[in-house]
Amino acid sequence: MAAAGLAGSAMAQEVVDQAAVAKIREEGLNHSKVMETAFYLTDVAGPRLSNSPGLKRAQDWAVKQLTSWGMVNAKLEPWGKFGKGWEVQKNYAAITVPYYHAIIAIPKAWTPSTNGLIKGEVVLVKADTTTDLDKYKGKLAGKIVIFDTQAKLQRSKNPDLSRYTDEELAKMEAATLAPAGGAPRRQFDANSPQFAAMRRARAMRATINEFLLNEKVGLILAQGRGTDGTTFTTNGASYADTAKAVAPELETSGEDYLRILRLVKAGQKVELEADIKTEFFNKDLQGYNVIAEIPGTDKKLKDQVIMIGGHLDSWHGATGATDNAAGSAVMMEAMRILKAINYKPKRTIRIALWSSEEQGLFGSRGYVAQHFGDRATMALKPEHAKLDAYYNLDNGTGKIRGIYLQGDSAAGPIFKAWLAPFKDLGAGSVTVGNTGGTDHQSYDALGLPGFQFIQDGMDYNTRTHHSNQDTYDRLSEEDLKQAATIVASFVYNTSERKEMIPRKTLPTPPPAR
Amino acid sequence: MAAAGLAGSAMAQEVVDQAAVAKIREEGLNHSKVMETAFYLTDVAGPRLSNSPGLKRAQDWAVKQLTSWGMVNAKLEPWGKFGKGWEVQKNYAAITVPYYHAIIAIPKAWTPSTNGLIKGEVVLVKADTTTDLDKYKGKLAGKIVIFDTQAKLQRSKNPDLSRYTDEELAKMEAATLAPAGGAPRRQFDANSPQFAAMRRARAMRATINEFLLNEKVGLILAQGRGTDGTTFTTNGASYADTAKAVAPELETSGEDYLRILRLVKAGQKVELEADIKTEFFNKDLQGYNVIAEIPGTDKKLKDQVIMIGGHLDSWHGATGATDNAAGSAVMMEAMRILKAINYKPKRTIRIALWSSEEQGLFGSRGYVAQHFGDRATMALKPEHAKLDAYYNLDNGTGKIRGIYLQGDSAAGPIFKAWLAPFKDLGAGSVTVGNTGGTDHQSYDALGLPGFQFIQDGMDYNTRTHHSNQDTYDRLSEEDLKQAATIVASFVYNTSERKEMIPRKTLPTPPPAR
Repeated sequence: MAAAGLAGSAMAQEVVDQAAVAKIREEGLNHSKVMETAFYLTDVAGPRLSNSPGLKRAQDWAVKQLTSWGMVNAKLEPWGKFGKGWEVQKNYAAITVPYYHAIIAIPKAWTPSTNGLIKGEVVLVKADTTTDLDKYKGKLAGKIVIFDTQAKLQRSKNPDLSRYTDEELAKMEAATLAPAGGAPRRQFDANSPQFAAMRRARAMRATINEFLLNEKVGLILAQGRGTDGTTFTTNGASYADTAKAVAPELETSGEDYLRILRLVKAGQKVELEADIKTEFFNKDLQGYNVIAEIPGTDKKLKDQVIMIGGHLDSWHGATGATDNAAGSAVMMEAMRILKAINYKPKRTIRIALWSSEEQGLFGSRGYVAQHFGDRATMALKPEHAKLDAYYNLDNGTGKIRGIYLQGDSAAGPIFKAWLAPFKDLGAGSVTVGNTGGTDHQSYDALGLPGFQFIQDGMDYNTRTHHSNQDTYDRLSEEDLKQAATIVASFVYNTSERKEMIPRKTLPTPPPAR
Repeated sequence: MAAAGLAGSAMAQEVVDQAAVAKIREEGLNHSKVMETAFYLTDVAGPRLSNSPGLKRAQDWAVKQLTSWGMVNAKLEPWGKFGKGWEVQKNYAAITVPYYHAIIAIPKAWTPSTNGLIKGEVVLVKADTTTDLDKYKGKLAGKIVIFDTQAKLQRSKNPDLSRYTDEELAKMEAATLAPAGGAPRRQFDANSPQFAAMRRARAMRATINEFLLNEKVGLILAQGRGTDGTTFTTNGASYADTAKAVAPELETSGEDYLRILRLVKAGQKVELEADIKTEFFNKDLQGYNVIAEIPGTDKKLKDQVIMIGGHLDSWHGATGATDNAAGSAVMMEAMRILKAINYKPKRTIRIALWSSEEQGLFGSRGYVAQHFGDRATMALKPEHAKLDAYYNLDNGTGKIRGIYLQGDSAAGPIFKAWLAPFKDLGAGSVTVGNTGGTDHQSYDALGLPGFQFIQDGMDYNTRTHHSNQDTYDRLSEEDLKQAATIVASFVYNTSERKEMIPRKTLPTPPPAR
């Protein structure tokens, strides 16, 4: 009851221009270009690993497209040094003995090529200590190496697709204020036996990898997470221009990995052939974000900036449709909608499509550091005072169900009022809670109002997030149209609002390490 | 109440030797070799398409293994002429323009090789009439052809894995007697516009395929059913030694097919490279079943035969684990259990591992025709009178929940009693209903008591049945142990029973066509 009363009174304070919302809805729901935008960002551009040619294609297209829709100052803005680009240019591997079977596998990001088409026996390497490696000395040149695992493939008893239930949303809404900076991290006891064992295992794996490289191993097989042909990808080496050399490594589908492993463990001879070609790009180590604006028109307010964004970079096994062409396309579409209805915003509206989110939110962190201040010292720049709010989208293709406040409870009644016209589209929940793992955190860390929307999970966690199945087919047109419409409406309301979005207390600088 | 009364009175008539059941349970549940058997039939033998080297490896291993367990008369028994063997010896295809992406795709069975490593542009062929083809004349040599589709990939809102609920089983038990020969087939009106359209479409597709072959097309892409990397396979040509030539054709995963199609339809240039090598085997066109026996020991009854079986052949995209290494391994394990407990059966017990089930139950039909009689004329052979019962398993890896009577209602109370000791393992349901699609039908068609067990569906229909994901990992150890134990117990009870299993009335010969 108290909550309902609060929302009621807040909605009374916040005036929502219903005619503007209607215009935005008409454009966003009935004249959408979001799927066309997503098509260009995924199918046409291809995989968009940080600093890869695929990301460059998508960035250049986005700048051109935003300009063609009437945005100004569209550009690639450097945010700092990232490292090497990388892409796959040939990817073939097959079992050839005891019979032929082409496997589903993806080179780990930033790993090198095989030495052309290689053919070799699969060798199971078991080593708990450095001396265990001695028995393999001189025996692994050109061989294909596999490691043991106890992993069995598990079938889920739940559907791949999911949406939030009313109960789940109500529970999120009832959440209380999280401590500043998010939930406290689990503390590891550096002296615990578990931690020591973990440290030893990690060190041993590094030792093994160096040994394998020195032994001129042909290829390493790693078991990719996933099942049914869905394989999740990771990186196998650093993107730094100074990175140490590693051996070629192939993230192999669970079914294929376990088949090979079972055969080898049963004493059956297994041979593979593989031809992996990967290319590194060293010419420009700089990272870039796509930036474009609709300039503000109110004399007093046009220096204030509302930002929206999502990361454009992806992993390399597919075309990063839900992670995060979806968010990028929605944000571009929100800008398009506002131009299409000929909106002249009071404040300046700026879109940012980040890069290198997948390696540590680098694009947004670099942008925030350049424009707003230094998280380490909390030394702030003048633009810090002018940033009204940042809205982010990066949780897949699911429609917007509400918004996370990141502890900024004063913003709650405002957003509740803004969501009210979208009840029929499934949105309305406001939670004071935090969500992490993406670019609004770069803003939040500096005390700027940075928000991520609550989205239906769909098959993000079961199938698409960093997998070889994150393709255009996973995108839900209806959901993306809804999301773009709501984002455009939020931007409109933020721009029209008398005051800026209320802020949390500035965080204190983190203790020096 | 009536049903319970019937079951109760039937169980009073059927005496189940609880000590024997206990021995079978102990061997089957605690000393099982079913997973080891399944490993050899799948991982070690590989795909087992009819008359392929993989099927031959599995057949030879099965004969050897059954013999080593003490079976006699283990052999490959020819059942008639099948046709050509075929296997994949190289399978590589990738998008190379507008960027590199290796696709998930499988050659359609019995299609030929590409002309080595080919590279070509993808051309969308749209032809509703023969004259529509004219515009492609002279333009398709070496090209890669794709067809349009309206198909979108659908995400299921249900879990991949399923087991029968108590309600579903109760409904099956409550089913009434199906008409002889199964449910009546839906009659097509040969004069209906729909039927005419279907006939035209099929004829047009045949015309197109011949045109493409004559134009020396490099490769045809077909959309494989399935999603998430799971791709279901089919055949693309006849296995007959007299089959007409066709062009190479690749069953392409939904995601990859639709990506290529979207790009081409949007006017984006797409190029592929592919290297498909398939091999045909013409030396021996004969089909074979694996046969082995535990001879009967009762003077009066040893000429009577109890048969158990499942088909050993599979499709080629994976190792046919659930379809049907599972059933084959369970049946081999049932034989092993009976030998392991040193059972001296009254009647002769015979296992048959069929081939060419996937092309039309050919192995079992051929066997039945050679041993029991002619379905067309209903001319019966002497062995027809001696066949006690045939039990089949071919519905995947799910445990046995009961048995289909195929309308042989007199067998119901008997089986109900035999299932009673397995209530704790989830089995107990008897339905008078039919199930189709596998080898017990060859027996049923000739009026012989042929039964298939009710099995939990698991992910048979969602993921494994004829797909590239039908691998050993899909096998559920606990379920297969349970199934082998129940089958062994059924065989034991059939062998010990005073009378043979009651039969239905003999069918009349089908009308000559």
